Amino acid sequence: MANDLVKEYERVDDLQNGFMLIQNPEYFCFGLDAVLLASFARVKKGERVLDMCTGTGVVPILLQEKTPGDAFVGLEIQEACAEMASRSVRYNHLEDRVQIVQGDVKEAAQLFGAASFHVVTCNPPYMIGQHGLTNPDMPKAIARHEVLCTLEDVVSQAAKVLTDTGRLFMIHRPFRLTEIMLTLVKYNLEPKRMRLVYPYVDREPNMVLIEARKRGNSRITVEKPLIVYERPGVYTEEIRGLYRSADK
Amino acid sequence: MANDLVKEYERVDDLQNGFMLIQNPEYFCFGLDAVLLASFARVKKGERVLDMCTGTGVVPILLQEKTPGDAFVGLEIQEACAEMASRSVRYNHLEDRVQIVQGDVKEAAQLFGAASFHVVTCNPPYMIGQHGLTNPDMPKAIARHEVLCTLEDVVSQAAKVLTDTGRLFMIHRPFRLTEIMLTLVKYNLEPKRMRLVYPYVDREPNMVLIEARKRGNSRITVEKPLIVYERPGVYTEEIRGLYRSADK
Repeated sequence: MANDLVKEYERVDDLQNGFMLIQNPEYFCFGLDAVLLASFARVKKGERVLDMCTGTGVVPILLQEKTPGDAFVGLEIQEACAEMASRSVRYNHLEDRVQIVQGDVKEAAQLFGAASFHVVTCNPPYMIGQHGLTNPDMPKAIARHEVLCTLEDVVSQAAKVLTDTGRLFMIHRPFRLTEIMLTLVKYNLEPKRMRLVYPYVDREPNMVLIEARKRGNSRITVEKPLIVYERPGVYTEEIRGLYRSADK
Repeated sequence: MANDLVKEYERVDDLQNGFMLIQNPEYFCFGLDAVLLASFARVKKGERVLDMCTGTGVVPILLQEKTPGDAFVGLEIQEACAEMASRSVRYNHLEDRVQIVQGDVKEAAQLFGAASFHVVTCNPPYMIGQHGLTNPDMPKAIARHEVLCTLEDVVSQAAKVLTDTGRLFMIHRPFRLTEIMLTLVKYNLEPKRMRLVYPYVDREPNMVLIEARKRGNSRITVEKPLIVYERPGVYTEEIRGLYRSADK
């Protein structure tokens, strides 16, 4: 019975797309960024997708529903997280399409082999280094700060595991935009599409979505602004649409 | 008499800040981009400013009014343009603060010397190379296409003429954002502030404003979106404010 998969200190959240997600409030719980990343990523029929830093496994579980991709692998370094994500896969009977692997992003190419995915997605730790951290070994700290993997680890390994026409989709913080672009280009992943996420129409953006392609030319499409709230507590039509489209 | 400065095929436009600008419809006439660049640039008391690719001289004439800078130099390669811009300076009796120099951006460091400006502004040709050009020697083509100067020419020379704490303010096209960032960093000008200009709230941006600082750290502030039109023909409050503040 599915409920045997959930431990007593865990909760089961409705992804509003017909699937459920097991989460532990002690760990990092998924937020709007995961939903935005899954919405921004484009996966074609038959493609293989690797989600790095998968955490709860939310991104592959969203993507397997909304795209015609063939196989979705979530890579997570924290054993307890990876084990919980695997239980979410079983809870949803997705074992045929989604697989959770416990392992280090820095070893992705060794784990999966070169050119083994058409798409990589990643919602990596946003904060640089361990600055201001008192417990760098806590699960939430590892998810938020570059304790165990850096931007360069993600990009360099994505470049290796992607096929020749492969794409990387990433969500990150705008304050690191220059570094993101430089690192992508360093590994021959050309930024091709970018969208800034503004909490309100008159505020600084707090997230940036980027698509990079292997060996693309230097020309990027910056998309229309993604605005999250009309007013406090009220999502814009576009964000409501994201949830509605998942709710079909 | 001031009117002796204007030729019969030219027109005199009111900058709405107490100053006038001579323009020739055969040349490139200034647009919203020049107004946005002058509004985005920050010039402190006593600073020296170089405007590269100055064209009509509109940016230094706007900046001398809105900032406490000490001296404003406009550099323009096209002789007829530079001559017309000089007449605008005399028309406004600004000879003490604004100077137009006819010369090549690629020789800016030789013309003015290293570390001779605190601020560089530039509204350069946006389009790459001469692609699709039938008359690459026409004044409008030179202003729009990288016929006589490239992005790298602007950035490399700005890096030379700027002081150690100098800033470059530039307006450009979003499709070249990756190249802009890479070129800035190549010449030790770190992107520190960026604002995207969206014609409407639900459209792709068509301009990007960037401030780069010599030897800054890799951390950029992306500002709130700048939205130009509320609806066709009606500027947003912010754009109306730009013109009102010039109208005091």
